[in-house]
Amino acid sequence: MIIVMKSAATADDIQYVIKKINDLGLQAHLSTGVERTIIGVVGDERLINKDQLSLLPRVENVIPILKPYKLANRDFHPADSIINVDGVPVGGKAIVVMAGPCTVENEDQLIQSAEIVKKAGVKILRGGAYKPRTSPYTFQGMGEQGLKILAKAKQQTGLRIVTEVMDAAEADLVAEYSDLLQVGARNMQNTKLLRALSKIRKPILLKRGFAATLSEFLMSAEYLLSGGNDQVILCERGIRTFVEYTRNTLDLNIVPAIKQLSHLPIIVDPSHGTGRYDFIIPMSRAAIAAGADGLIVEMHPNPEEAISDGEQSLKPEKLVQLMSEIGLIAKAVDRTIL
Amino acid sequence: MIIVMKSAATADDIQYVIKKINDLGLQAHLSTGVERTIIGVVGDERLINKDQLSLLPRVENVIPILKPYKLANRDFHPADSIINVDGVPVGGKAIVVMAGPCTVENEDQLIQSAEIVKKAGVKILRGGAYKPRTSPYTFQGMGEQGLKILAKAKQQTGLRIVTEVMDAAEADLVAEYSDLLQVGARNMQNTKLLRALSKIRKPILLKRGFAATLSEFLMSAEYLLSGGNDQVILCERGIRTFVEYTRNTLDLNIVPAIKQLSHLPIIVDPSHGTGRYDFIIPMSRAAIAAGADGLIVEMHPNPEEAISDGEQSLKPEKLVQLMSEIGLIAKAVDRTIL
Amino acid sequence: MIIVMKSAATADDIQYVIKKINDLGLQAHLSTGVERTIIGVVGDERLINKDQLSLLPRVENVIPILKPYKLANRDFHPADSIINVDGVPVGGKAIVVMAGPCTVENEDQLIQSAEIVKKAGVKILRGGAYKPRTSPYTFQGMGEQGLKILAKAKQQTGLRIVTEVMDAAEADLVAEYSDLLQVGARNMQNTKLLRALSKIRKPILLKRGFAATLSEFLMSAEYLLSGGNDQVILCERGIRTFVEYTRNTLDLNIVPAIKQLSHLPIIVDPSHGTGRYDFIIPMSRAAIAAGADGLIVEMHPNPEEAISDGEQSLKPEKLVQLMSEIGLIAKAVDRTIL
Amino acid sequence: MIIVMKSAATADDIQYVIKKINDLGLQAHLSTGVERTIIGVVGDERLINKDQLSLLPRVENVIPILKPYKLANRDFHPADSIINVDGVPVGGKAIVVMAGPCTVENEDQLIQSAEIVKKAGVKILRGGAYKPRTSPYTFQGMGEQGLKILAKAKQQTGLRIVTEVMDAAEADLVAEYSDLLQVGARNMQNTKLLRALSKIRKPILLKRGFAATLSEFLMSAEYLLSGGNDQVILCERGIRTFVEYTRNTLDLNIVPAIKQLSHLPIIVDPSHGTGRYDFIIPMSRAAIAAGADGLIVEMHPNPEEAISDGEQSLKPEKLVQLMSEIGLIAKAVDRTIL
Repeated sequence: MIIVMKSAATADDIQYVIKKINDLGLQAHLSTGVERTIIGVVGDERLINKDQLSLLPRVENVIPILKPYKLANRDFHPADSIINVDGVPVGGKAIVVMAGPCTVENEDQLIQSAEIVKKAGVKILRGGAYKPRTSPYTFQGMGEQGLKILAKAKQQTGLRIVTEVMDAAEADLVAEYSDLLQVGARNMQNTKLLRALSKIRKPILLKRGFAATLSEFLMSAEYLLSGGNDQVILCERGIRTFVEYTRNTLDLNIVPAIKQLSHLPIIVDPSHGTGRYDFIIPMSRAAIAAGADGLIVEMHPNPEEAISDGEQSLKPEKLVQLMSEIGLIAKAVDRTIL
Repeated sequence: MIIVMKSAATADDIQYVIKKINDLGLQAHLSTGVERTIIGVVGDERLINKDQLSLLPRVENVIPILKPYKLANRDFHPADSIINVDGVPVGGKAIVVMAGPCTVENEDQLIQSAEIVKKAGVKILRGGAYKPRTSPYTFQGMGEQGLKILAKAKQQTGLRIVTEVMDAAEADLVAEYSDLLQVGARNMQNTKLLRALSKIRKPILLKRGFAATLSEFLMSAEYLLSGGNDQVILCERGIRTFVEYTRNTLDLNIVPAIKQLSHLPIIVDPSHGTGRYDFIIPMSRAAIAAGADGLIVEMHPNPEEAISDGEQSLKPEKLVQLMSEIGLIAKAVDRTIL
Repeated sequence: MIIVMKSAATADDIQYVIKKINDLGLQAHLSTGVERTIIGVVGDERLINKDQLSLLPRVENVIPILKPYKLANRDFHPADSIINVDGVPVGGKAIVVMAGPCTVENEDQLIQSAEIVKKAGVKILRGGAYKPRTSPYTFQGMGEQGLKILAKAKQQTGLRIVTEVMDAAEADLVAEYSDLLQVGARNMQNTKLLRALSKIRKPILLKRGFAATLSEFLMSAEYLLSGGNDQVILCERGIRTFVEYTRNTLDLNIVPAIKQLSHLPIIVDPSHGTGRYDFIIPMSRAAIAAGADGLIVEMHPNPEEAISDGEQSLKPEKLVQLMSEIGLIAKAVDRTIL
Repeated sequence: MIIVMKSAATADDIQYVIKKINDLGLQAHLSTGVERTIIGVVGDERLINKDQLSLLPRVENVIPILKPYKLANRDFHPADSIINVDGVPVGGKAIVVMAGPCTVENEDQLIQSAEIVKKAGVKILRGGAYKPRTSPYTFQGMGEQGLKILAKAKQQTGLRIVTEVMDAAEADLVAEYSDLLQVGARNMQNTKLLRALSKIRKPILLKRGFAATLSEFLMSAEYLLSGGNDQVILCERGIRTFVEYTRNTLDLNIVPAIKQLSHLPIIVDPSHGTGRYDFIIPMSRAAIAAGADGLIVEMHPNPEEAISDGEQSLKPEKLVQLMSEIGLIAKAVDRTIL
């Protein structure tokens, strides 16, 4: 941590800051420049409340030096983490695709979807039983009944199941029926939910909030890791910007950034990241080319009839095309498709 | 709802869309332009899933005409709503100020804060017992014990209490000890929480998510209203932008916008909206001048020692100054301070 | 400037950085922490190319300490600058309002506008002769003929004239006919134009680019100041965000920020900052309450017939109302209207 | 164009709008819904000033239906445009890479750069002679002397030259020495410059403004096309968002969007789009995978010594690696590298 003093700071002001640093059990290191004096803090700055220093008299600015996340930080865990989704590894050389409808609508729709995605070579089936909808007047999901249908699909096809959990109180229930629990973008900073999931023995798919910085994203992962659950997969799904032609702006820059700063795997959701079915395939190719460890894609047997997100769902034949095209890209970046 | 057909659309494509509209129990109205054909949908478009029409062959675009919110819409409720916070009216001619520390740290700190804010003329005391923190390593709040301290402050001073609720499972508990339940920005779209609060008989302070559109903001209010709780106060607290000199960008444009589109009162949080104690007073004046119905401000007896948000908390004497300055602004816009 | 070394940095890496700093004629100051070594640079860091240090082996980050702007910096010029617009002072106790149509359409329209704004008590007439339009198919301004009409309006009414200059080659011409030359938001970083205007003996109204940081904004002012023109008025006119209900997001936080960091006056443009005529009055009140030194507002004798920006122009009677309402706010913040 | 009337609109209000539409030489088409009346306008809406209708009494909203750009619109020009850069085709099956230093620093540096990029297989050399810098205190480019060095590099290596033009008055000069004239992001809406370049007989590389919508981007292209220059290459170079770990957010979604809406080729600048040399290669792969027609990349013989943009410049050996890696991606998407 670096403390920058105002140009008007006196020797007394500087001594006062040094005393405060020492009171916190840390050491101060003075550097007197031409226009400004700066004070370095030696010790674990993560333990200090930055404001306690920034509000001292004639302090201009306090600049943290260390990253606030520790367990998610590659500095302390150089090797890539590989997450085990009931036997399916995510984060290794093989790229993993998760696909399925936005919402579990009924048994027929889901089983049909499961068969389509399995046939296309997908290993993990997605489908929402609890749905976070913007409007209270739209379908909010089948709830536990939807979970049972998902479990049945697993039984019939062997596909692993990923589904969203929205509330701490439902964590155990969702964990019972699924292999990978998704925290949605709206809940990335629902700390009650994160704490509950840190106690669950199932891997977590943590979606980036649509206005989350990288640091906030990894701090949410840190809630899971520090609570005891080290099976975390990150997911980029687009951020909110001024852009008008897509629902969100897919921020693929975060893929190499995460690879550099963290050991956790990162996958990409081109359905939410574009909001448009006709952009899913090119942006899926781009995601894999950028270094993503996998994809989560919406597919519906009949998008026109979908209860939600039909506009950003692939038709069955397009999922087959997607698998073929990303296979070529995977090869070009020396990876495989699981 | 307006359906714009692609230039390549044939008579058959148009007939197919019309048939679909009729199948949904609605009527179609055709308008043939020079470059495009457009089809108007007559009926309550809120009941239609837009995607079911946008995915039909050669449909270029589907444009909703009606606002998605109904109960929060001023069209259906022209008079201003006045919310009753245990006898304190919010949304009328008198402006209401809520102030207090970010976090309840201990009984002494809170009681001292309560006395300071009361003496300054504030009517509602704020203080967090459950804290949504970015980092799992920082203080997460005193929980129920904090609520009890808040209740004691009310008993001693007569101040009403506003405090945050973070989880559906805690709604009843928080309601027991407080007069106004705050939904934080991070939870604005936590639909489980909104549903739980729609069943509570206490007013709700709904903070805007830091990347929420006006429409999403009012749709979250709609969850509360449609569930049966019509005591909703909105709060602007800054949005996330590229700007580097403030923690958030306070979007005061939303004040006249909400006044036009909704009957619900709106207050402003200049502490989070700027992140800087030295900007709170000018931006509080600006908020009242723009037409806000009140303020929620962080004040700490000793900001240097605050556990959180010290950088955006007023000192006691500055709260007195704020009350005096906004008093003059209130008069200039023909309002009073409660 | 602070250089943060990676945790893997060796003594040799550190010595190499120190050598480079010394080669640049500056001094290095070492501070060895638990997880990181940091090196302070003593000397005028504005002279160093940051990249030359950040690319050295095992450098993690380079953090500037000093503000990049010097002449616009309040540190070096503590007193408020008051800009003289042909006898009208901007930046003092009195608030200055500039008003008029977006575009000079013809002599009648402009003279009529001039009389309306004069009668309302406005001191400076705005009107565009050169228009930066998004579309090549819309009216691009009357050019020099428009300037002549503006000059005639000055002659008849005594109003000072502010008008936009878009190109370095036209700087002298525009200066001949006007009292205050506006640099539009799209041209805030047109450095050729800024350099040309730094040589002109007329004050400049510099509008903030719609995605400019505060630092970039002041650096554009620095082009003018360092080139020899110290008569600069800043103007906030809204930034581009995800928000859907206004054309731009008026960032009033920048008003106290500029007052703190710079000595230059700042005015606000609520027409562009909202894009909506019905929000101009409340946001004008808010701007003055936040501490702005003036306003620039679009007014048209008949907005329905305006060639451009009719949606964000006041009707004549609304300008009278605006002047009356901001008069009350000015009084509340101990200022006057010029 | 669709006009939505307010719920309170009377028959007279509606008749008044219809009359205005007819006065503009267009036809109105009425559609009476349950809550709103909407009026369709039949005719070329590009000729109407939207505000003239939106300001009529009890009009709630005016919604354009047609795209504002015509010559850049794929509807009117279905085939891909292939731009001829002195014999090098951009926009066809072969992907084109442009590379070189940010700034022409001196003859040695540039000639050395030219030889490096040529050897790596690059066809077009970039280098700035006129530099739009944020700070007036940094190097602003060598000007005409830099152009001469670029021309010499072409003579020696046969590489085509792309360089930036910043001012209408310099358009002819820059055109004399270069094969492709770049309009920088800061000048995307410098309409004087666009008009001047529309009269030049050389192709233009139009970079997207860092806060430009797709529609504004294509409207700037429309200035060039409608002025008579149909040789336009678009370039995505990152947009400004809240994101903290990259200089800009590279918006690859725009690649499939442009391919759908326009016939113009689009290339990607991963140097500015990330601001980090270590992200250039993965994001170049992603750009090609998304469907881009080429890349423009910063390369410096010795980035540590670069006058500008060293942080986002490749070293020579990394350019070789980039060419190899994108070669594999190009093959995977059935394209070649020129």
